[in-house]
Amino acid sequence: MNKKIINTLNVDLKERSYPIYIGEGLLCESGLFKRHIEGQQVMVVTNETIAPLYLDTCLDALDGFQRESVVLPDGEQYKTLEILTKIFDALLEKRFDRFATVVALGGGVIGDMAGFAAACYQRGVPFIQVPTTLLSQVDSSVGGKTAVNHPLGKNMIGAFYQPRCVVADTQTLDSLPDRELSAGLAEVIKYGLIRDESFFLWLEQNIDTLLARDATALAYAIERSCINKAEIVAADEKEQGVRALLNLGHTFGHAIEAGVGYGKWLHGEAVAAGTVMAAEMSCQLGWLEEASVVRITTLLRRARLPINGPPELSAAQYLEFMAVDKKVIAGKLRLVLLEKIGKALITSDFSPKVLERVIDAACAR
Amino acid sequence: MNKKIINTLNVDLKERSYPIYIGEGLLCESGLFKRHIEGQQVMVVTNETIAPLYLDTCLDALDGFQRESVVLPDGEQYKTLEILTKIFDALLEKRFDRFATVVALGGGVIGDMAGFAAACYQRGVPFIQVPTTLLSQVDSSVGGKTAVNHPLGKNMIGAFYQPRCVVADTQTLDSLPDRELSAGLAEVIKYGLIRDESFFLWLEQNIDTLLARDATALAYAIERSCINKAEIVAADEKEQGVRALLNLGHTFGHAIEAGVGYGKWLHGEAVAAGTVMAAEMSCQLGWLEEASVVRITTLLRRARLPINGPPELSAAQYLEFMAVDKKVIAGKLRLVLLEKIGKALITSDFSPKVLERVIDAACAR
Repeated sequence: MNKKIINTLNVDLKERSYPIYIGEGLLCESGLFKRHIEGQQVMVVTNETIAPLYLDTCLDALDGFQRESVVLPDGEQYKTLEILTKIFDALLEKRFDRFATVVALGGGVIGDMAGFAAACYQRGVPFIQVPTTLLSQVDSSVGGKTAVNHPLGKNMIGAFYQPRCVVADTQTLDSLPDRELSAGLAEVIKYGLIRDESFFLWLEQNIDTLLARDATALAYAIERSCINKAEIVAADEKEQGVRALLNLGHTFGHAIEAGVGYGKWLHGEAVAAGTVMAAEMSCQLGWLEEASVVRITTLLRRARLPINGPPELSAAQYLEFMAVDKKVIAGKLRLVLLEKIGKALITSDFSPKVLERVIDAACAR
Repeated sequence: MNKKIINTLNVDLKERSYPIYIGEGLLCESGLFKRHIEGQQVMVVTNETIAPLYLDTCLDALDGFQRESVVLPDGEQYKTLEILTKIFDALLEKRFDRFATVVALGGGVIGDMAGFAAACYQRGVPFIQVPTTLLSQVDSSVGGKTAVNHPLGKNMIGAFYQPRCVVADTQTLDSLPDRELSAGLAEVIKYGLIRDESFFLWLEQNIDTLLARDATALAYAIERSCINKAEIVAADEKEQGVRALLNLGHTFGHAIEAGVGYGKWLHGEAVAAGTVMAAEMSCQLGWLEEASVVRITTLLRRARLPINGPPELSAAQYLEFMAVDKKVIAGKLRLVLLEKIGKALITSDFSPKVLERVIDAACAR
């Protein structure tokens, strides 16, 4: 057997700490999984797109356990309580006990649903994240946020629940559609914007290499993103403070996703358009230079991401969805904005008029 | 205003510690509630039976907050993910934020559902238990277990989630139907059986007084039950060990509840019949004296509780439901049994034949 190169990062959450393994071909690495499984039963949760590609490989790596799988439909529109029930059905039909491990094999939607199911099944069973998209490798599989959507708001029903480990096999990105690669880059760019200026510079220089799927560049971007996220999560597991910065562009983005109907825009696409809105608002409030807005917009466009919201969504609709955002406190909306590239802040210190003007402008483009 | 007598117990769970207030007329005590509410919004979750009796009083005590309520249908058969959604709908329609407090006003079903909804809404908002039945005052409102049922098993989907406080108003028991009073006594008797022999003796002497709803006797039984439960929960919040003893009679009982269809038997009734089965099994295994089985059965019968399972349920059906019990580990069923009155143990050290014989005998009666 060839010795695989495995980069290991640690998410430091005391008794809930766990490692993130990043490397090529890790899905075959039986030993990685076995190290983190206590019981005898493993339920792999995946979707119809991923199952034909990687389910057998994953089940092979879990040889020796009672292995079962449940295959969900693919798409954000299925991230609902109703579809979540299918995971509980599978666990109970196979008589899985409190020591069973749930493995999330797929992108962010699968990770969110399998993680939330693990958090609730018998009041909590262990789980392992095996992210197979760029977005889930750099963002959603790290940090323990799990949830499903409600028709009135994204990720409104969920739990903070940490995995036992994250196994990010960069080889699984080979099968990722271009559109999803770009969507993942939206979150990668986010880390540069909120706290890592030199990473943003690196991205400006390497965005074409990343889009060409250069393995070394991708591995570097994934690792640096995970390091940034792990540091933030370690400092603020339950989003009482600094963790909220990870939501740059997300309040606008969630409104887009809910407004056009879940699954039509990819999460990363909505975040990209939302990031431009956040940048423009930061500029109008006098915090961010015009030139920085241009750099941000340019990089997102080069990453083949949308920089305008969907034409069919009105400003009133944005405001409706933004009013139920999790960052609303006592009726007051808080937004993540930018002071400069590499520095974000969370604030409710803006006039509603500026917000409306930014959204109106985005709607008009 | 008359000064109310309020007994306060503390559930010691470090940063998740909380008080249990027990007393007559506490539902009117605004100050008790306000002390434990941080935000500006309060959602009272109750059911169709309790709403006409106590909802207005409860809302009056919450004067000064944005007060909303959601009224669910009454009964264990509605403790489902589907009905749970109604709580999320109400919270989102009223645009409740992360600092909103959920108040559970009702019996065990309402407490379990409102608590689980609070655990999941926006990944966790504060909640307060206001139990209005004997069963919920002595058992389900203390200890942070929340859940809904799945057709294949009781309480299979849930969370450990502690309330900010428990407000047990003994006056609300005045409206409790006799059948539910008895059902609550099943859990009261349980505390005597598993760890408090002198309380069991007191119950043998005072069971008729309790059934006659003597206020002093009821208050004493509630307080002593809560003390027992609080001690166990403080020692083992997440049921890794000693807390499992609280499930005396419950593995049999859950099979009865699921087997006949949720809502037909009250939880406490099923637990009573299950306790007799556990006692008989303990006797057949040579641990518990025959005379103790008689005392247990007699006390439960005097409390007007069923001591046999439902005639329509076969032994095979019991075993089917018991196989998915949360105390099953690696396919091996563990049961809470009795060494003597006042001392329980959890064990898988029994032959399946003894278990079948006990169930067969219970089915034949």
